[in-house]
Amino acid sequence: VLLILRDAFYGVRTFSAFHERLGMAKTVLSDRLQRLTDRGILERVQPRPDVGRFEYRLSRAGRDLFPVLVALVQWGDRWVFGPGREPIQILDRPTRSPIQKVEVQARDGHVLDAREVTFAAGPGASEATRALLAKFDTTNAERKRRP
Amino acid sequence: VLLILRDAFYGVRTFSAFHERLGMAKTVLSDRLQRLTDRGILERVQPRPDVGRFEYRLSRAGRDLFPVLVALVQWGDRWVFGPGREPIQILDRPTRSPIQKVEVQARDGHVLDAREVTFAAGPGASEATRALLAKFDTTNAERKRRP
Repeated sequence: VLLILRDAFYGVRTFSAFHERLGMAKTVLSDRLQRLTDRGILERVQPRPDVGRFEYRLSRAGRDLFPVLVALVQWGDRWVFGPGREPIQILDRPTRSPIQKVEVQARDGHVLDAREVTFAAGPGASEATRALLAKFDTTNAERKRRP
Repeated sequence: VLLILRDAFYGVRTFSAFHERLGMAKTVLSDRLQRLTDRGILERVQPRPDVGRFEYRLSRAGRDLFPVLVALVQWGDRWVFGPGREPIQILDRPTRSPIQKVEVQARDGHVLDAREVTFAAGPGASEATRALLAKFDTTNAERKRRP
């Protein structure tokens, strides 16, 4: 599913182009494209009414996954390919300069890593989520108490 | 796999806690934890030598997936749960203020959406990637030529 999305951002649109790129069985690809369409991430579009061929395009929700995709590409550049072996560069279109690294930032703009945040129940938290967060807070407290 | 990672960021560590949270078959969970460990995203740690129980913790590579995870959580808040129904808040630990939305930024700091970037072959591009990017550039050129 992630590979399909990545290719959709790169501009792949037709079933045959996805198939050529990803090399998965047609039934599997068809099933995944259907699921992405059902979830409203891809839209099935018929660009020309006289040609029966559909295209799969990113919906607004799909395009909104852009930061997820870029963060994942940058993670792969670092941990899978390594510096100097990046397969793809993402460029700001008008200036063709590389984009910045996607980071998590605090309200004042400083970059946060995973250990500098904490999680709290939101307005839509389920009982299970509340229970997990309560347990997690205990764990943090324990960690602090240990030398 | 994404749900396991999300829970790992929330502080879930033991097999039984993952199992309780995710409710998947033990064999499936075990297989996925093994794959995440093989890929160097989780580390199997034995916190106390006298207790045989392992914990799964995020490795450095795993913690580096933090921007991916946060972007995905924020996407879900918007498109799955909706405003006012967010299950979890992510807070800057010392100030307990909500973090910023994760965005893709150009070098000068302005926010980019998916249509404002272009892709170029990186130093490690395969032939297949080069071919795709060449095709994609053609598509862009065509788009411009159309009224």
